[in-house]
Amino acid sequence: MRVLGVDPGLTRCGVGVVEGVAGRPLTMIGVGVVRTPADADLGHRLVAVEQGIEQWLDEHRPEFVAVERVFSQHNVRTVMGTAQASAVAILCASRRGIPVALHTPSEVKAAVTGSGRADKAQVGAMVTRLLRLAAPPRPADAADALALAICHIWRAPAQNRLQQAVALHTAAATRTAPHTKGRTA
Amino acid sequence: MRVLGVDPGLTRCGVGVVEGVAGRPLTMIGVGVVRTPADADLGHRLVAVEQGIEQWLDEHRPEFVAVERVFSQHNVRTVMGTAQASAVAILCASRRGIPVALHTPSEVKAAVTGSGRADKAQVGAMVTRLLRLAAPPRPADAADALALAICHIWRAPAQNRLQQAVALHTAAATRTAPHTKGRTA
Repeated sequence: MRVLGVDPGLTRCGVGVVEGVAGRPLTMIGVGVVRTPADADLGHRLVAVEQGIEQWLDEHRPEFVAVERVFSQHNVRTVMGTAQASAVAILCASRRGIPVALHTPSEVKAAVTGSGRADKAQVGAMVTRLLRLAAPPRPADAADALALAICHIWRAPAQNRLQQAVALHTAAATRTAPHTKGRTA
Repeated sequence: MRVLGVDPGLTRCGVGVVEGVAGRPLTMIGVGVVRTPADADLGHRLVAVEQGIEQWLDEHRPEFVAVERVFSQHNVRTVMGTAQASAVAILCASRRGIPVALHTPSEVKAAVTGSGRADKAQVGAMVTRLLRLAAPPRPADAADALALAICHIWRAPAQNRLQQAVALHTAAATRTAPHTKGRTA
């Protein structure tokens, strides 16, 4: 599977594309940062984020998009910008019918380092190792985007198994229903 | 001037179009609510908000869009949805080159009721009076969207005067600069 990870932000929106399946070596397809000028007005910044994400979707055609789930932080101004940039990324993917998954920062850290409280350097080091890169991707937002994509690939089998179980259960219930009805009629 | 006011929200996004200028009776052109199902996933909800806003822009061709400025509130989940819906509204307008203004809830309340701490009923009553409606628009989100549009029309002259003063000052500085240079050369 090919996944675009997005670490949302107005000033720097990290983007990284990873291809692979759980249990096999992963491949980095691309990594970068969509930047918007801090002195531009919010509308222009959101349009620039949209254009940047659209370019990454056009160029790399991911099957899934994984976006960091935004939580309220201490800095309200920052969290608003992050929430708004994430909305644009989710909108761009959903408009194309690409499934979007949200992963929390601690899920991502736990997936790539084994600890939900790992620091940025540790995440960068593991991303570098897992994707067999020569050096950690810079800035940290780019590394975080790759970590999101890796997290999604590794968590997907569990999520798929859960979905399959639900689908099987639903199908079984549907098959059973008319039969039961037939017996009681 | 024709202004589309947007009271952003994922479950109910209030929209209202008002036409007029400060100091003259105002006219309501349209009012409504863009709704998205609470059980749909975030991506589908944002796409639905985008489609709704686009329809209002297509149908009413506003010259300005006024959106409520989102602050962090007690309920983090709600404020995230509000920030994300506002991002979509701002994006839709900015993509078309329509200027977007953000007004705080207290600016809007102060503009239409004289008090920044007015309650919803008071805002609804004043919107009804100012637009000469038969009854307060329902739900409250729709009335708030109209109040935002009214606020923008009434605040615009002051903002325009400020912009004109800045423009005049800049132009004067530009005119002065070559003259001074000429004298010292």
